[in-house]
Amino acid sequence: MKSFPSRAIVREVGLRDGLQSIRTILPTARKCEWIRRAYEAGQREIEVGSFVPARLMPQLADTAELVAYAKGLPGLVVSVLVPNLKGAERALEVGAHALLVPLSASHAHSLANLRRTPDEVIAEIARIRSARDVSGSRTRIEVGVSTAFGCTIQGEVPQQEVLRCMQAALDAGADQVGLADTVGYAGPGAVRALFEKARSIAGQALACAHFHDTRGLALANVHAALETGIERFDASLGGIGGCPHAPGASGNASSEDLVFMLEEMGLQTGIDIERLLALRAQLPAWLPDETLHGALARAGLPKTSATRMSAPLASEIQ
Amino acid sequence: MKSFPSRAIVREVGLRDGLQSIRTILPTARKCEWIRRAYEAGQREIEVGSFVPARLMPQLADTAELVAYAKGLPGLVVSVLVPNLKGAERALEVGAHALLVPLSASHAHSLANLRRTPDEVIAEIARIRSARDVSGSRTRIEVGVSTAFGCTIQGEVPQQEVLRCMQAALDAGADQVGLADTVGYAGPGAVRALFEKARSIAGQALACAHFHDTRGLALANVHAALETGIERFDASLGGIGGCPHAPGASGNASSEDLVFMLEEMGLQTGIDIERLLALRAQLPAWLPDETLHGALARAGLPKTSATRMSAPLASEIQ
Repeated sequence: MKSFPSRAIVREVGLRDGLQSIRTILPTARKCEWIRRAYEAGQREIEVGSFVPARLMPQLADTAELVAYAKGLPGLVVSVLVPNLKGAERALEVGAHALLVPLSASHAHSLANLRRTPDEVIAEIARIRSARDVSGSRTRIEVGVSTAFGCTIQGEVPQQEVLRCMQAALDAGADQVGLADTVGYAGPGAVRALFEKARSIAGQALACAHFHDTRGLALANVHAALETGIERFDASLGGIGGCPHAPGASGNASSEDLVFMLEEMGLQTGIDIERLLALRAQLPAWLPDETLHGALARAGLPKTSATRMSAPLASEIQ
Repeated sequence: MKSFPSRAIVREVGLRDGLQSIRTILPTARKCEWIRRAYEAGQREIEVGSFVPARLMPQLADTAELVAYAKGLPGLVVSVLVPNLKGAERALEVGAHALLVPLSASHAHSLANLRRTPDEVIAEIARIRSARDVSGSRTRIEVGVSTAFGCTIQGEVPQQEVLRCMQAALDAGADQVGLADTVGYAGPGAVRALFEKARSIAGQALACAHFHDTRGLALANVHAALETGIERFDASLGGIGGCPHAPGASGNASSEDLVFMLEEMGLQTGIDIERLLALRAQLPAWLPDETLHGALARAGLPKTSATRMSAPLASEIQ
């Protein structure tokens, strides 16, 4: 059997993917507290928001302030989502460490989500790359190929089209690419098949997997992706996010359950699960009207966990 | 990477492991309807109840009737749980196809659950084997080594003790053994490690994995176990069961989510997921006071599932 990597990165996307899709607008001070405590728990990559027009997404209107705050935490990789060049220019201005461009492999979803075809988005990625290079910025450009396992609008998304989009994103100048199961259609079979092929094309530039837990398979999908060499996963504290097409369904893989699984498997995440759970315990008060997910927050750590989890990184935090 | 088996068996244990731990007493006619519809959906192994004193577990008092009913369905493997020789004698009398003896590897759990030490249970297994052989019955004797990944009472359960119990069960005359994560402590790391070792000891006699979804890892654990060659899994419709030590936590892996995952991976289960979901849709009416689990029942099948799932077995059902 294939051996697993020795480390894994859990990138927190709850502040972006989670908060964008729920009604509650979390105050900026709260978001800063979330970022600080996630950092203190050991998280070293956080997607703090999106540069989209505030009238479209008032929940994320404070993204520039959050980038500024988060950049004050040494060693934290601060990323933002940008839908287009204009958003990318703002990300470059504020000096985000990484900007993430979603590229939907589903033609129908791309039009519905960004009012652009996949090829128009690819052209925009090339413009974003030019803007980055001209600015002299070192901001990493990451493209998340979304609806990579199917689409609630168009249904099947051919694997060939997903891989074509990924290759085109790299050709247009993306530094890294990832594959996202935007609507929670993926299972371990499709994950293994697609990530293996994507790996053979993109090599180490394939650097992220993004799973939604809509059908309860997010962690099994992570398990399958690990075996194809993926070591970096998006996740959302409390599994927030949901999906408008699947009432009651979870959003992203929940960060705390994912960290628990990875550490149980002997993969170092650098994250202190008890501190992360203490932060998770704040969410019901912060988001009182939202449905939260995640099994660990309900069931607690096993009695046996102390001996299995890696040591806290207290010395790194100060 | 290791290839997966081409088929897998999902044994329904909701009527036993599920119903024993909830308050509602389902009428016998309802249980028969459940068994019939599970069978029509393609399930070919069902644990219909336990032979325990009715005063201790009134929910399962109709087990003999259920065995008689279920034996009328051609090709269905009908199993019952028995805690001791007396229960086994009843299972032999009614001609169950298989009887399952739980053997807790946790000394503390064994005393709490059966008022016997593991070694006393092992001696009882030998007596059950003798009784079976004397009776001329072909009832299969299966031992489920429980608390194999830890125990809520004693905490750690040494792997060595789990393997010793398993070997002793085989030596005492069990035809098959399985490993059960009774309290939902297992993760894919421990699953892989323990099942690999158990396989090297028991070979093909190691024939079942039983996971609880208490910490959201049941399906990831199945994924890990598949890679060690396990092809048979216990599961419970609607994930019923729960755990008194983990309020709000799920019980067994939910049958419908498990079938969905296995079929997505290309493993033939023989189960028509749409029929199984139609049966699952009855549970809220049958068990109105119970918390039900499972993501698929909330989110529905993906738009893309028709082309991915295997064909219904209508021709086998008549």
